Amino acid sequence: MEEEPRARGANPSHEAPIAHQLQELDRELSAAAAPSRFAGLDRRGFLALGGTGALFCSLAATGSVGGDTKQTLRAVAAADVAAAKVKRPRRVALDPRDRDRYPTPQPQPGGVVREYWVQARSLMWDWAPSGRDEWMDAPIPQKKRKRQFRGFAYQLYSPGFARALQQASIPGPTLHAEVGDTLVVHLRNGDEHFNQAITMHPHGVKYTPDYDGSYFGPFTRVGGFIAPGEEFTYTWEATPDSVGVWPYHDHGPNHTLNTFRGLFGAIVIRDKGANAPDVEEIVWFHSFGPEVTGLDRLLHCINGRAYAGNTPTFRAKVGQDVAFHVIGGNNDFHTFHIHGHRWKDSAGVVNMDTPTVGPFETITARFTEDNPGRWMYHCHVMSHQDAGMAGWYIVDPA
Amino acid sequence: MEEEPRARGANPSHEAPIAHQLQELDRELSAAAAPSRFAGLDRRGFLALGGTGALFCSLAATGSVGGDTKQTLRAVAAADVAAAKVKRPRRVALDPRDRDRYPTPQPQPGGVVREYWVQARSLMWDWAPSGRDEWMDAPIPQKKRKRQFRGFAYQLYSPGFARALQQASIPGPTLHAEVGDTLVVHLRNGDEHFNQAITMHPHGVKYTPDYDGSYFGPFTRVGGFIAPGEEFTYTWEATPDSVGVWPYHDHGPNHTLNTFRGLFGAIVIRDKGANAPDVEEIVWFHSFGPEVTGLDRLLHCINGRAYAGNTPTFRAKVGQDVAFHVIGGNNDFHTFHIHGHRWKDSAGVVNMDTPTVGPFETITARFTEDNPGRWMYHCHVMSHQDAGMAGWYIVDPA
Amino acid sequence: MEEEPRARGANPSHEAPIAHQLQELDRELSAAAAPSRFAGLDRRGFLALGGTGALFCSLAATGSVGGDTKQTLRAVAAADVAAAKVKRPRRVALDPRDRDRYPTPQPQPGGVVREYWVQARSLMWDWAPSGRDEWMDAPIPQKKRKRQFRGFAYQLYSPGFARALQQASIPGPTLHAEVGDTLVVHLRNGDEHFNQAITMHPHGVKYTPDYDGSYFGPFTRVGGFIAPGEEFTYTWEATPDSVGVWPYHDHGPNHTLNTFRGLFGAIVIRDKGANAPDVEEIVWFHSFGPEVTGLDRLLHCINGRAYAGNTPTFRAKVGQDVAFHVIGGNNDFHTFHIHGHRWKDSAGVVNMDTPTVGPFETITARFTEDNPGRWMYHCHVMSHQDAGMAGWYIVDPA
Repeated sequence: MEEEPRARGANPSHEAPIAHQLQELDRELSAAAAPSRFAGLDRRGFLALGGTGALFCSLAATGSVGGDTKQTLRAVAAADVAAAKVKRPRRVALDPRDRDRYPTPQPQPGGVVREYWVQARSLMWDWAPSGRDEWMDAPIPQKKRKRQFRGFAYQLYSPGFARALQQASIPGPTLHAEVGDTLVVHLRNGDEHFNQAITMHPHGVKYTPDYDGSYFGPFTRVGGFIAPGEEFTYTWEATPDSVGVWPYHDHGPNHTLNTFRGLFGAIVIRDKGANAPDVEEIVWFHSFGPEVTGLDRLLHCINGRAYAGNTPTFRAKVGQDVAFHVIGGNNDFHTFHIHGHRWKDSAGVVNMDTPTVGPFETITARFTEDNPGRWMYHCHVMSHQDAGMAGWYIVDPA
Repeated sequence: MEEEPRARGANPSHEAPIAHQLQELDRELSAAAAPSRFAGLDRRGFLALGGTGALFCSLAATGSVGGDTKQTLRAVAAADVAAAKVKRPRRVALDPRDRDRYPTPQPQPGGVVREYWVQARSLMWDWAPSGRDEWMDAPIPQKKRKRQFRGFAYQLYSPGFARALQQASIPGPTLHAEVGDTLVVHLRNGDEHFNQAITMHPHGVKYTPDYDGSYFGPFTRVGGFIAPGEEFTYTWEATPDSVGVWPYHDHGPNHTLNTFRGLFGAIVIRDKGANAPDVEEIVWFHSFGPEVTGLDRLLHCINGRAYAGNTPTFRAKVGQDVAFHVIGGNNDFHTFHIHGHRWKDSAGVVNMDTPTVGPFETITARFTEDNPGRWMYHCHVMSHQDAGMAGWYIVDPA
Repeated sequence: MEEEPRARGANPSHEAPIAHQLQELDRELSAAAAPSRFAGLDRRGFLALGGTGALFCSLAATGSVGGDTKQTLRAVAAADVAAAKVKRPRRVALDPRDRDRYPTPQPQPGGVVREYWVQARSLMWDWAPSGRDEWMDAPIPQKKRKRQFRGFAYQLYSPGFARALQQASIPGPTLHAEVGDTLVVHLRNGDEHFNQAITMHPHGVKYTPDYDGSYFGPFTRVGGFIAPGEEFTYTWEATPDSVGVWPYHDHGPNHTLNTFRGLFGAIVIRDKGANAPDVEEIVWFHSFGPEVTGLDRLLHCINGRAYAGNTPTFRAKVGQDVAFHVIGGNNDFHTFHIHGHRWKDSAGVVNMDTPTVGPFETITARFTEDNPGRWMYHCHVMSHQDAGMAGWYIVDPA
């Protein structure tokens, strides 16, 4: 059998059975931390957080946050505390498959290794740097201090993590490969704030369970728990049915909150030697809610920013082959509209200009540009559009 | 003209005009039942419930339940009382079509009759029998008593209702037919708790208005009101455009609540002689909300259960032809994701791993299995996933 | 360069820079109007309304209205006041494209001009004229006075606005063209109540920025701001990829509220000389919420009306080619179901009877009618169906 991959920097003593962690939490709560720090959480609810930040985050993630932001923030704080206590699970084998070991995939003949160095770190993120809504020509009624919150981002580095190639930003870097290649991603958990394990879980590509990048509790494999300070190398295959544009995101023990905070990005897989469109844009339709911003309102964002002039201003030229790949985040469904443009559905049959896209689904609008001018693209869910999910698309003459 | 089908056990004296029922309700409310039993409902609101459990249930079904579970439960109790008072409507004919009679369909040449005996009954249902979330390796913070609620299920019987073939469970039995066949379903309302008429309304198959299985108020045909103790035989045709996987569900006078409680199942129609996939799974993405559980939170379930280890653990083998048919319930939209797998959209053009599925819509993920290991399948709406909508899919080597 | 189109009746003195408007609002609020009229709005929030009714309307448009209708109505009143103060923006040119001028499109060889005269006006609209839910055979618990609210509608006129061709109603008139034609729509803002600029923004057709019909703040072109009393002529092209059925709607400075109030309709584009289906119905799935009705509940409507007997009763005959084009409004996703019928997806591959449709997306159900009787069509989101989104479809024998 194959040697199982291992995280660099992994500290075996960091491991502890979940049951033990729960006992610890229990003690802490009994020791009166609860009344001050976790007011509003019943003890049972808090205990459930032991191995399960996610369970609790669901409360923050649902619509129930609308009513009481303070209550939401208390819940989020508790989930973060709990998630920081989750240790690398000691793996159990309930099923024969839990004992299997897998070879690390190699590129197909003619394929190559596409290697990326990515560090995850938290950062102060400004969801509207201009402070204005260019569409409505109005200030965004929020002081700059309130426009910054503790986000979480994947950041691209040069080989061997020698130096950052981009500023940490939301979404993270776009990863590219062609059919037959392997994508090799060296992920470092470089965050010094949250003290939580994170991962990178890809869609679209093929991977063995070791490289799933998902925390599975007692069935977690090594790629599913990258503790603070650790580094892990994922290897994913670009197969023929991987062709497309896909999300990747955190799937660690506190995946919901940390994905909401910004731990997401895109993967583009093309056929061997296929040309890219002349203009190719990744458009994340996601939100920053009270649970991450601490604000009383829900911001509907595009690529980390809200309101035209902050959201990306895209640009193309008449005659170009243009593709917008729209990916949904969080919990919401959207419809993607571009003014002045139409395109075919995936079957090439129906003309459309406002297709539905759901959470972590991708839809593509692809057309030959034929209409110069300043246009708007936006989510056509009216409440999303009005809460920031709109931007400019400017087309130059040929 | 054809003889109209009739429910066995139907009691003509059970019939009463809706207007009369409303007067009765009015009298009851005036007689002071309201203050205690229906506190929080205004009299006008309650009156509207006379023939219209559904109208009222919509209150329970919307997001407005989040805020006040007790208020929701009062509304549900009132809707149930009202629904139990709905009597078989005396049919009116506003339109010539309301007078038409229809022959009972027969199988096409070469087709056969596929006969099922199904009883509807309420039951105490445990939405998480293990009491644990296997994914997060944590107890579900809910006492067993709280995990049981009064659900409603379709249960499969042997011919003539001689004996139960399965335990009553949620969802109900999957019904199968091939193109050219008729599906003949003998439905008995065997419930002794709710005292409400129920039905079975199918999607996908072809039926005459008699076999629509829908309460239509004064236009209700016989298959649209199966009172407690009654039995009715539906006959549905599997036509060429019936090929697919479809939901069936209650469409009686209290359809929303009773469908939410568990009165739903699936129909699989194949072409004549077509092979089934090697592995074929029906995956209901539905919820149990406060209105049925009495809990303060919304559970997002798969096939009646919440949280991995309670939701189904599916299993397949490398090389098998695998199909997951995902059907949405209740009011929510979902995206269906399986780790480690991709498949084509229905047009065979786009690769996907997280398609959207809406209420009572079906989407199918079909692929040749090529990836052994323990995988997770889940709804990718993060708040749904975290509220229980996730499970295991284990793939064995060839 | 081309002459830029101009609104008839435009009053240059009506123009004022947004910044100036904000100062005015500021003064007004300081002058104590706020405490009485805008209680519940903080000053900063109100200021943001200067050029941005939409920004604020998003509050009204989200689920947050559920809790407190009075608060919602105050916010809506404030948004309306602010929107009435928005003046035609003085255009700025941040980008070379903002200076471009565009020729008015002409029909292609063989194409014609399809000319429409449409006036926008507010009206008192009754969302359930019969006062009853025919399905549940029950009165709708709402006095007639409460069933009427101040809606907004596009109304069809004869050439030169000589006389109204239809009563003002919701949705507005359906506009038709064939590939190669131009659609020329003379839009008059004839409203005397709201005192707000409106527009007509089309989907599916091709247009230059002048005819986009969208308020873009400082980038607004002439077709994006039709002030009360003004008239503007839009010219849109029906291109080959325009074939389909599309929404049009208000996209002025208060687009969300005014679209919710009823400023929407449909455009049907066919191939040159193509036959219409024998029966072709436009089915708007939209809602009237507390923000427009002042009621405590959300109504889910079809073509402006809620509950069977108020929503359209559609009719066809066995053997006919039938098309239902379903368009979503507002913020909600829906699934469209017709009892007793099935049809193919757009690729012609999958059989369906309950497809998803999102806001301002169109889906089409097209089939050869083969099933006589009284049927129900409805949204299969149970809470929508129960809140009015259902109607009759009656099929006569051949």
